[in-house]
Amino acid sequence: MKSRITSLFGIDFPVIQAGMIWCSGWRLASAVSNAGGLGLLGAGSMSPEVLEDQVRKCKSTTDKPFGVNVPMLYSRIEEQLDIIVREGVKIVFTSAGNPAKYTTFLKEHGITVVHVVANVKSAIKCEQAGVDAVVAEGFEAGGHNGKEETTTFTLIPQVRQAVQLPLIAAGGIATGRGMLAAMVLGADGVQVGSRFVASEESSAHQAFKQKILETGDGGTFLALKKVGPVRLIRNSFFQKVHELENSGASPELLTELLGKGRAKLGMFDGNIDEGELEIGQISAMIGDIRPAAAIFREIMDEFHVAVNEIKNW
Amino acid sequence: MKSRITSLFGIDFPVIQAGMIWCSGWRLASAVSNAGGLGLLGAGSMSPEVLEDQVRKCKSTTDKPFGVNVPMLYSRIEEQLDIIVREGVKIVFTSAGNPAKYTTFLKEHGITVVHVVANVKSAIKCEQAGVDAVVAEGFEAGGHNGKEETTTFTLIPQVRQAVQLPLIAAGGIATGRGMLAAMVLGADGVQVGSRFVASEESSAHQAFKQKILETGDGGTFLALKKVGPVRLIRNSFFQKVHELENSGASPELLTELLGKGRAKLGMFDGNIDEGELEIGQISAMIGDIRPAAAIFREIMDEFHVAVNEIKNW
Repeated sequence: MKSRITSLFGIDFPVIQAGMIWCSGWRLASAVSNAGGLGLLGAGSMSPEVLEDQVRKCKSTTDKPFGVNVPMLYSRIEEQLDIIVREGVKIVFTSAGNPAKYTTFLKEHGITVVHVVANVKSAIKCEQAGVDAVVAEGFEAGGHNGKEETTTFTLIPQVRQAVQLPLIAAGGIATGRGMLAAMVLGADGVQVGSRFVASEESSAHQAFKQKILETGDGGTFLALKKVGPVRLIRNSFFQKVHELENSGASPELLTELLGKGRAKLGMFDGNIDEGELEIGQISAMIGDIRPAAAIFREIMDEFHVAVNEIKNW
Repeated sequence: MKSRITSLFGIDFPVIQAGMIWCSGWRLASAVSNAGGLGLLGAGSMSPEVLEDQVRKCKSTTDKPFGVNVPMLYSRIEEQLDIIVREGVKIVFTSAGNPAKYTTFLKEHGITVVHVVANVKSAIKCEQAGVDAVVAEGFEAGGHNGKEETTTFTLIPQVRQAVQLPLIAAGGIATGRGMLAAMVLGADGVQVGSRFVASEESSAHQAFKQKILETGDGGTFLALKKVGPVRLIRNSFFQKVHELENSGASPELLTELLGKGRAKLGMFDGNIDEGELEIGQISAMIGDIRPAAAIFREIMDEFHVAVNEIKNW
């Protein structure tokens, strides 16, 4: 399956594994890259020192292209970008910020730049900023999420209409059918997050992976809208936040409850009651923890089956 | 395009025009049925007397199948069902209630019964209740909406997996590409709402239709979650509700603000500031008001173009 996305990254199949905090280390990224997709390190939960180590491990375990996702909110981002340049990383996904800020710097160093957006206006800004591709991520996605609450089904065709850039769909995509549907709506490739959290190579805690398997329809919800919307599993921590939100709590009070390190506590340390468990709605369709290469193959196979069904109509 | 949905209803192309309050009268329903889809009257905003008149007008303007959507919350529903039986209506879509309640009665009168759901659990209940097909409607849909906030992209494959029933996808679908994407995800047909509100034959007020054309990405939002979630255009009325909700207002206070007749005021009487304007996220893709038959043909044509693109891969 060739598209503008396989050409842009020099990969075999237009599937990107999302660079997610606490879940996407070198084991997962190199497994996906070796399988023929694009693996991403999630720098948002790494100190610059850890990122340097992870990039080196990625380089030593795959000869294929890989990249790093850098959330622009991160306090030590400039140190991270220096490491990325110094270590010769060729692909960077930026998120949660203004695409104009680092695109020129990165491109001057020969890096392919992709920016993640959740609405049409930001996609247009990406094009103006000169990024090479855009990820459009819908409301069903896990973790940080757009204020507009635009879903994948409605966001992808709108972004397709608004910009010429290669377009990667994200949010709700865990299967080959989901991939084909996103491409029918206008995407050139897809980014898969939740499905790869429940892989053997993901660095998510085993208890979090297990919790994903148990999460059904309605098992996640968008929380903390006043602080910054984030999709979470409905655990005890979520319930506390939800009740406070329903009673009109201020952003300050919510920030205080949230405290520090809540995502690490849940996703990496495995406290599934009191931690923040970021995962997408499509977790309801995830029924096993498998090696990333097997997940990747399954997506490819189902995609081809779905394409052939249409060819036989 | 044949599917289990075209066979079930005896129509040419598996597109159903949603039976929406204040928008779907006999002009719209018969235009869609005459075009080869399934037109539905929206009984939720009709007195039994008006419904009787509308059904008769439908019968006199189309020889093709048409149906009625009956929200089960409606106070005079039993009178409506009597009229439906007496007038020989062959297809009923029920919504907003328990599918077990009227399915047996309707089927005993030879009526094909479809129930609208927003989550997997309700879809399973539909199968148990013996309905003939299910509409699964995602979070992006306009008007009344599910508490789970499951999007079309994640709801359709889950319902497909959970039940054997013919499956109609709804929420976010206004184009042929959207239709094909929904079918790739597992649907046998689609229900289109917002796009047909902005048709010449819809009974929506011209000012509401015009407002839909001006609505962009992020222009609708889910409101009144404590009372019963409903997707609305962000007008003055919405802003008042939204501020009250953010400050923790009780369901009673919200119900008081809502008052009576707010949907009629906005959608039928055209008070676009103080009325409740129910429309889906996909309104951001709607750019003109056209005859329903032209909209229908456009959806069919785009669907076939998208199918042929895949055939040529």
